[in-house]
Amino acid sequence: VLDDDVAAIDRLMEPLHPADVADLLEQISAAERESLLQLWSTGIDGEVLSELEEGLREEVIAFLPSHVLAEAVRELDSDDVVDLVEYMEDAQQAAILDALDEADRAAVEEALSYPEDSAGRLMQREVVRAPEHWTVGEMIDHLRHHKADLPEQFYHIILVDPRMKPTGYVTLGRMLSTAREVELNQITEDSFRPIPATQPEEEVAYAFNQYHLISAPVVDDDGRLVGVITIDDAMIVQDAEAEEDILRLAGVGEGGLNDRVLETTKQRFPWLAVNLVTAILASLVIAQFEAAIAQIVALAVLMPIVASMGGNAGTQSLTVAVRAIATKDLTRSNLMRVVLREAGVGLINGLIFAVVMGLVGLVWFGSPMLGGVIAAAMVINLLVAGLAGILVPVVLDRLGVDPALASGAFVTTVTDVVGFFAFLGLAVLLLI
Amino acid sequence: VLDDDVAAIDRLMEPLHPADVADLLEQISAAERESLLQLWSTGIDGEVLSELEEGLREEVIAFLPSHVLAEAVRELDSDDVVDLVEYMEDAQQAAILDALDEADRAAVEEALSYPEDSAGRLMQREVVRAPEHWTVGEMIDHLRHHKADLPEQFYHIILVDPRMKPTGYVTLGRMLSTAREVELNQITEDSFRPIPATQPEEEVAYAFNQYHLISAPVVDDDGRLVGVITIDDAMIVQDAEAEEDILRLAGVGEGGLNDRVLETTKQRFPWLAVNLVTAILASLVIAQFEAAIAQIVALAVLMPIVASMGGNAGTQSLTVAVRAIATKDLTRSNLMRVVLREAGVGLINGLIFAVVMGLVGLVWFGSPMLGGVIAAAMVINLLVAGLAGILVPVVLDRLGVDPALASGAFVTTVTDVVGFFAFLGLAVLLLI
Repeated sequence: VLDDDVAAIDRLMEPLHPADVADLLEQISAAERESLLQLWSTGIDGEVLSELEEGLREEVIAFLPSHVLAEAVRELDSDDVVDLVEYMEDAQQAAILDALDEADRAAVEEALSYPEDSAGRLMQREVVRAPEHWTVGEMIDHLRHHKADLPEQFYHIILVDPRMKPTGYVTLGRMLSTAREVELNQITEDSFRPIPATQPEEEVAYAFNQYHLISAPVVDDDGRLVGVITIDDAMIVQDAEAEEDILRLAGVGEGGLNDRVLETTKQRFPWLAVNLVTAILASLVIAQFEAAIAQIVALAVLMPIVASMGGNAGTQSLTVAVRAIATKDLTRSNLMRVVLREAGVGLINGLIFAVVMGLVGLVWFGSPMLGGVIAAAMVINLLVAGLAGILVPVVLDRLGVDPALASGAFVTTVTDVVGFFAFLGLAVLLLI
Repeated sequence: VLDDDVAAIDRLMEPLHPADVADLLEQISAAERESLLQLWSTGIDGEVLSELEEGLREEVIAFLPSHVLAEAVRELDSDDVVDLVEYMEDAQQAAILDALDEADRAAVEEALSYPEDSAGRLMQREVVRAPEHWTVGEMIDHLRHHKADLPEQFYHIILVDPRMKPTGYVTLGRMLSTAREVELNQITEDSFRPIPATQPEEEVAYAFNQYHLISAPVVDDDGRLVGVITIDDAMIVQDAEAEEDILRLAGVGEGGLNDRVLETTKQRFPWLAVNLVTAILASLVIAQFEAAIAQIVALAVLMPIVASMGGNAGTQSLTVAVRAIATKDLTRSNLMRVVLREAGVGLINGLIFAVVMGLVGLVWFGSPMLGGVIAAAMVINLLVAGLAGILVPVVLDRLGVDPALASGAFVTTVTDVVGFFAFLGLAVLLLI
């Protein structure tokens, strides 16, 4: 990738979109990145910084001469600056805030005063607003006179009353197709929904998705307009939420592809530790049946099958439940029906696999009784797996624990313990 | 929920957003839904139908009198009609198409001629376009004269040459803030990116996300403008893709919360069947060591721990890998580094848990040798789990198989077989 010719690098990188430059920086090795940045720090503008994943961002920022950094940050909208600095260490954050001019710094600092992951952090402060009584013509003239102050993208004119409370909004398309003398408050949209600045960002993303919003005004505790959130911000949040659910379900905390070995080890360790405790619990169950296993070694051979089937069936139910909770599709009013459905599915699949495993047990070990035991254990475990898969996440959610994070461990514990206990217990009762 | 008073139902439902009406229909039971629809079919408009999940949509449509259905469909934009009918049976689809007027029907039929899940299916045909040489003033006058034909939402004016090829676009905000006499081709945006109608929809969503697009023109094979895709469509696709990955990783096919027991059983059965084969493979490995287990029953007690830890570590790696492939963050240029990282993480976590389990083995069973065996098996299995977790999805992806769908089974097979083999094999070598 690298030779020492800056002009050549410029030529190569110039046609790339900032997002692609950021991807390139993410995909080369740390050493290559270092050489590239030393030669080409001027190419890193604010948009590239915004696109970089969090872990790398600080590494790259540390490399930039302060005048390049200041220049980069100044060109960004306030929401992008907030996004850039909110998780930085204090010293680095202060350095970046100092690079901003007074008004922008105040805007960023106010945004940072809202709770993490709230609408206040997500919104941009640059709002296009108008007094309610203005006409289309007055608004167009106003926009033409203030073109330098307009945000890069905006989709609505927000109407405000004299106390700065938003009362409605007008799409640009509607405004463009309406005669100049019409008042803006005659052509407002039904979809208007102000969002409180303290609302958690996943609720914001849900509202955008559910009501097909394009932009929405953000209001403070007194109902006054403080900013606007646009659909691209909501899309990023929604993407991040789904990603978080996927990674949490797999027992992987946060973390990107560029984290180092030790960081990644640390992220994955807790889940493995929880799993170890679970597995030891299951082992304790098995230990109760040592005598039976010593007598019939076939039990040791078959017992992982029951546990593994239960674990898988439980994961299926719990994943569906976790997603349904996240998308607000699972509520009090349909919970009972969904629980019954999971029980039904567990029972039917349990019966099918009971027949299959009964035959496997019979053919493999020539013992109809052993076949019967594993068949019965299979039905019990898949039924329990279905029920645990739905009930554990629902209970965790009611307790205020993120079901994506903790359900897996609980459900696996249940299916392991029940699976081993049912299989080995029945074996003791019927075979010995 | 229900009494027989239609007016009361109207009063209750009227203030609800169509998306909320659809949610309500999804959450009540089938019997309640039937009574509600019999009383209140007039309340179901096109937007409610669009919001319903696929499974229920056909059920609800079957209930609607044909004039209500025709009315409901006529008010939708062409992309929403396509979305509504594309997976319907032929007879039902034909009935709906017949309800449309000529021009709309032609538009929907043309969209249906594009491949499933392509940009052509996603786009809307209603496009706001202008000849390149028009001025801002001419465009505004044109919009004012054709206001009845405008799509409900649009964000750009697309400029086309005389052969209908798009050459650029102008944001409405930019147009509103520019003087009437300026030509539109003076104020076009850099973000302009035409999308081929045959492009798969996940590529479209990726482009919107990567380049922060709000809308993009869709072109046919000859480069002519045939429609436009907006960010809300892309957001829905992206949401669906993430959901699909989550469900596939958990071995749950498609399917919603409202599917019936038998449908759901059928969706989950294949993955459980695959898992059974995997589990039997693992059992066959154990069966090779029956003699050793009969001699030292402690092996049967501890052996699920090694397998379970390996399975979990493998799931962690493979989930990260599957997502990185989906988001195009894992490429040839960083594959080697990521593989080495996974190996490093597996090795370190393996060593930590080796020490823990070694001590557990020693304390529990009083045998330092048994502790050593389980410790060694742990290191081997977590290392292999890390490598399988990254390599299996990458290889599947290269072979054109969706890694989210198939990786889990392969990785679990590897970790089960390797885990049991390492633990029991070492036990035979060292303990017997």
